[in-house]
Amino acid sequence: MHSEIFIHPKAIVDEEVSIGANTKIWAHAHILKGAVIGENCNIADNVFIEGGAVIGNNVTIKNNCSIWNGVHIQDEVFIGPSVIFTNDRFPRSPRMPEVKERYQKEEHWLQRTLVKKGVSIGAGAIILPNLTIAPYTSIAAGALVSKSTVEHALMLGSPARLHGYVCTCGYRLIAGKCPECHKNYPELRD
Amino acid sequence: MHSEIFIHPKAIVDEEVSIGANTKIWAHAHILKGAVIGENCNIADNVFIEGGAVIGNNVTIKNNCSIWNGVHIQDEVFIGPSVIFTNDRFPRSPRMPEVKERYQKEEHWLQRTLVKKGVSIGAGAIILPNLTIAPYTSIAAGALVSKSTVEHALMLGSPARLHGYVCTCGYRLIAGKCPECHKNYPELRD
Amino acid sequence: MHSEIFIHPKAIVDEEVSIGANTKIWAHAHILKGAVIGENCNIADNVFIEGGAVIGNNVTIKNNCSIWNGVHIQDEVFIGPSVIFTNDRFPRSPRMPEVKERYQKEEHWLQRTLVKKGVSIGAGAIILPNLTIAPYTSIAAGALVSKSTVEHALMLGSPARLHGYVCTCGYRLIAGKCPECHKNYPELRD
Repeated sequence: MHSEIFIHPKAIVDEEVSIGANTKIWAHAHILKGAVIGENCNIADNVFIEGGAVIGNNVTIKNNCSIWNGVHIQDEVFIGPSVIFTNDRFPRSPRMPEVKERYQKEEHWLQRTLVKKGVSIGAGAIILPNLTIAPYTSIAAGALVSKSTVEHALMLGSPARLHGYVCTCGYRLIAGKCPECHKNYPELRD
Repeated sequence: MHSEIFIHPKAIVDEEVSIGANTKIWAHAHILKGAVIGENCNIADNVFIEGGAVIGNNVTIKNNCSIWNGVHIQDEVFIGPSVIFTNDRFPRSPRMPEVKERYQKEEHWLQRTLVKKGVSIGAGAIILPNLTIAPYTSIAAGALVSKSTVEHALMLGSPARLHGYVCTCGYRLIAGKCPECHKNYPELRD
Repeated sequence: MHSEIFIHPKAIVDEEVSIGANTKIWAHAHILKGAVIGENCNIADNVFIEGGAVIGNNVTIKNNCSIWNGVHIQDEVFIGPSVIFTNDRFPRSPRMPEVKERYQKEEHWLQRTLVKKGVSIGAGAIILPNLTIAPYTSIAAGALVSKSTVEHALMLGSPARLHGYVCTCGYRLIAGKCPECHKNYPELRD
């Protein structure tokens, strides 16, 4: 590991994890064996990153998020507080005799999630598995995402639906133009 | 306690708790005095189990769930990440002078929840108190459960409504038959 | 700090925080530099209180809540488990080059929330920023609050809407009268 990595003394970083330069891991976070985290990330309190999870560069993950095996987060993503990922569509306790066999092999139950570059996921949103969140999508706080999204989508509600488009900078587009940074998206006039 | 119990060095297990054989308690979990946990359970990071909570055998509880006094979870239940239980319908800060007396006695405010055998509760679901979740019910991710359920119910939405039935194995029934394990439920053709 | 303050040995209290007499801070809570907490509060497991957050007296905050910079909570408030506050309407990762400048100055992104005296916020509710929750409002479990409320409002749903009124003691009014403590609110007959 690079010497510039900051790990809070109350974080737990297991053996055999990969953490990029300038990344900060805060208190009560738990990084499990096999997790991969890029450079210049901010991993807040009580974030849990499981083996098999992959996180890119410049990612911000706020408190209480769990990033499971099967979740891949690309660069520059924002994950708000208490966002919930999932990786099983028909969960049962793996200790139940009737399903014990299913949970022996990942391919029998594990479903994946891909969060692409520049996405924001608002506080408390729930992301069902087996989908892709396209670049620069913004998921509103509390949304339940059950389908893949298009680029720059603003997704809102439960289940989440397309309610417009957002700029790379995060503001909502008005007639294809960003009111904040004035960037134009002629193809995104909704 | 049995010697086969695993307690992560960063878990907190108070005095006078009951934990069954082969149960695992992970980091930052906190088991309070008076809590009862059965055999072969998996209690994940930052799970909080209060005195008065009772948990059966073969139960899986994922990260960030709090199991309060008044919540009883039977065998083989799956509790997804960040599921929220409750035990008070009209909460106020017990430190507010107008309600201080009410919070002196449990019978004036505490409401109970019973989660029966084989139930699954999806990620981020919220369970209101004073209800029973019947055996093998599946609660979808993000659902808000305000009423008791029937056996094998698939409950979805906010408030949660019956959207079909699920097999013991967790898959959704189609015309009373499980597409995964082919078990028949002639009485559950919806 | 007063000697009557209880801080669990597994809580983290940074330097330069203000904590009032008789307040209890439980395990895995994290109080950051600059946070202000009043007297006789109960701050439960894994509560995170950031610098810039202000909390009054007699406040109860249940497990897993994060109180950010910009959130001000007045006296006698109840914050249920896993309630989610927010302070940014258009979040992006501050590490994304296109928005790095915006996150240099609080006035370019920080939005505030004021929770007034005697409010209750139910389990898992999400509070959007730039609003005020009026005294004695009750927010139902799982509600998504996107607008300011009126006094004694009962707010329910996603987005939360007015569904009646509650007494100071927390019970729902029936024709302007509390069925529990018999207090009258002639102006709140709905």
